[in-house]
Order: sequence, then structure tokens, then C-alpha cells
Amino acid sequence: MTTPLSTPWRHYDLRRPGPEDHLPVLAVLDTWWDGMGGPEASRQRALLLPKLMFQHFTESSFLVTSDERIVAFLIGFLSPSRPAESYIHFVGVDPAERGNGLGAELYERFFAYSRAHGRSVVRAITSPVNKGSHAFHTRMGFVTEPGPEEFDGLPVQPDYDGPGLDRLSFRKNL
Amino acid sequence: MTTPLSTPWRHYDLRRPGPEDHLPVLAVLDTWWDGMGGPEASRQRALLLPKLMFQHFTESSFLVTSDERIVAFLIGFLSPSRPAESYIHFVGVDPAERGNGLGAELYERFFAYSRAHGRSVVRAITSPVNKGSHAFHTRMGFVTEPGPEEFDGLPVQPDYDGPGLDRLSFRKNL
Repeated sequence: MTTPLSTPWRHYDLRRPGPEDHLPVLAVLDTWWDGMGGPEASRQRALLLPKLMFQHFTESSFLVTSDERIVAFLIGFLSPSRPAESYIHFVGVDPAERGNGLGAELYERFFAYSRAHGRSVVRAITSPVNKGSHAFHTRMGFVTEPGPEEFDGLPVQPDYDGPGLDRLSFRKNL
Repeated sequence: MTTPLSTPWRHYDLRRPGPEDHLPVLAVLDTWWDGMGGPEASRQRALLLPKLMFQHFTESSFLVTSDERIVAFLIGFLSPSRPAESYIHFVGVDPAERGNGLGAELYERFFAYSRAHGRSVVRAITSPVNKGSHAFHTRMGFVTEPGPEEFDGLPVQPDYDGPGLDRLSFRKNL
């Protein structure tokens, strides 16, 4: 089932993603982020977005289409082990659709879903070099958690996701 | 809290993993599977095992130590979107500890946890080249789901996890 999603700029359709969306999402990411690292980055995105997320986290995730073309998605889940928390794992927006509020809309939907399931904290992470992501999360009300290192004035968690995989860690109280 | 885990061969301790186990697990995987692909494979394992799994899936996961040394672990979860299913995402056993029944013990614990939470199906996947994993899952009662291609007589799901990431798909009824 899709929900119409009207912005001042354009009409979109919002729905839950499913397993059949997995390969199309990986394919549009290659198109959107073509310049970012080539085949190796493409493979890394596939490993970060295994099919299991499109099988088992569908209820807490969202996908936006425009004329049946995927233009944005958010993969998130309610933490099974931390009953007060939810987590946003991966978000993508078609660069051609930026500025239409899709990212903010997806986050607001996920916040509402999290609140409706009793969650009071949302977490997310990003790469320290991703200045746009930091600015976006700050606008959405996230704070960047303190870290033992600094990159361009931002607190960094070194080796957060493994050796060499530094991250900024975001937290928002709902 | 740890639980003693006695096998006919040796004493182990079983507990839930936590965030502090994430980097040590990635480090022992590099030791255990050193010959398998070098630094690129190490990075791929880190992407397949993000810290979020050691933060949010801890209740459904298990870690085994011997004299405080990590010797085996299982990362799994109850599917949020498929109420009858649970999923085993990643399992590792120290090659030096093989033959002591640790893999089977971890699977049995996960089956029991899944049953206790009303799950009737467990799923897992593996790479088609991993003959040992196929044999193990078959011994544990999994069936390999039909696939449109074949590799060495086994049914393969081509591009299951992304372009070039073929998988065998296992299912077991509890």
C-alpha cells in the first residue's frame, strides 16, 4: 500500500520497502553516488545493505517513489535489546530530488513510528567526512555525541565500526 | 553474566555479546580467517558486522570464551517484520576449537531462544563456495531453498545480496 506524499514541490508515493526493492535500491545508489568510490564503494554499500534489511526491517523502513522510480529510502529499526531506542541505519535521497524535503519527511515518519512504539531515543551514525549529513542531523535535532578525537571541529569516534571506520555518533531525544 | 558451557572436551563460558566485544570480534576473525582475502576481506567483514549488531541484537546473540579469549560467537535476531521467523546473520568459531561442538551448541541456543519467542522458522544464508557451511547447516536440519542456478550441485540464489554476491539460502522449521 502506498501513501501519497505531497510536498509544495511535487507528488511522491510513500510505502514500506520489501525484498524486491533490494537490488533496485543498490542500483539507484550506484547512479546517485556514481562518483563516490567506484566498484569498491558499490560493493561496500551492498555489504552495508544486505537483503536481510529488506526482509526483516520493512515495518520500520520507508521508500519513496515518483512515477514508480525510487527517489528516497530510509532503513531503520526499533532496537530489540534497548527498549527505549530506535536506530536509523541507512538513508538515501536522489541528488536530483534534493531540497524537496524528502530526507526530513522520512526522518519525521521514522520519529513518529518510534514514538508510537514507545521509543524515546533515536540514534544514527555517519562518516566524519560527510559534512552534509552532520548538518542535516543537526537540523533534525540530533546532537553529536562526545568523542575522543576531532575532525574539522567535530567529535569523532575512532574505529567505531572497525579499524579505520571512524564515525560521528548522533542521538536525538524524542 | 556468563553461563558455564561444558562439552566432553573442554570448559567454556557463554554470555551475551555487547558493544565492547565488537572490535575484539573483528580482530579474532582476522586471526581465524587470515588466509581468506587479506585486508579487503577484513574490511568486508567489518561492514557485514557493524557495531549496531553488538548494541541492538545482543539479547538474541551469543559469545563463547575460553579463559576470557573469544572462541566462538553467533549474531542473530528475531525478525521484527516476520513474526514467525528468526535469522542467523553471522557465526564464527576459532578454527583451533573446531570439532568441540561449539557451532552446534550456539545454533541450539538460538533455536531455543527463537522457540521461546514464538518463532517457527529460522533462516540463514552462506556463500556458495562455503561447502563446510552447507554441510553444517544440513546437519543442523536446515534445507537449502531452491534457486534458479546451481553451483557444484547446490541451488544458488544469484545476486542475492547484491551484484555478484550469490548466496545459498537455508531454512529450518523449528
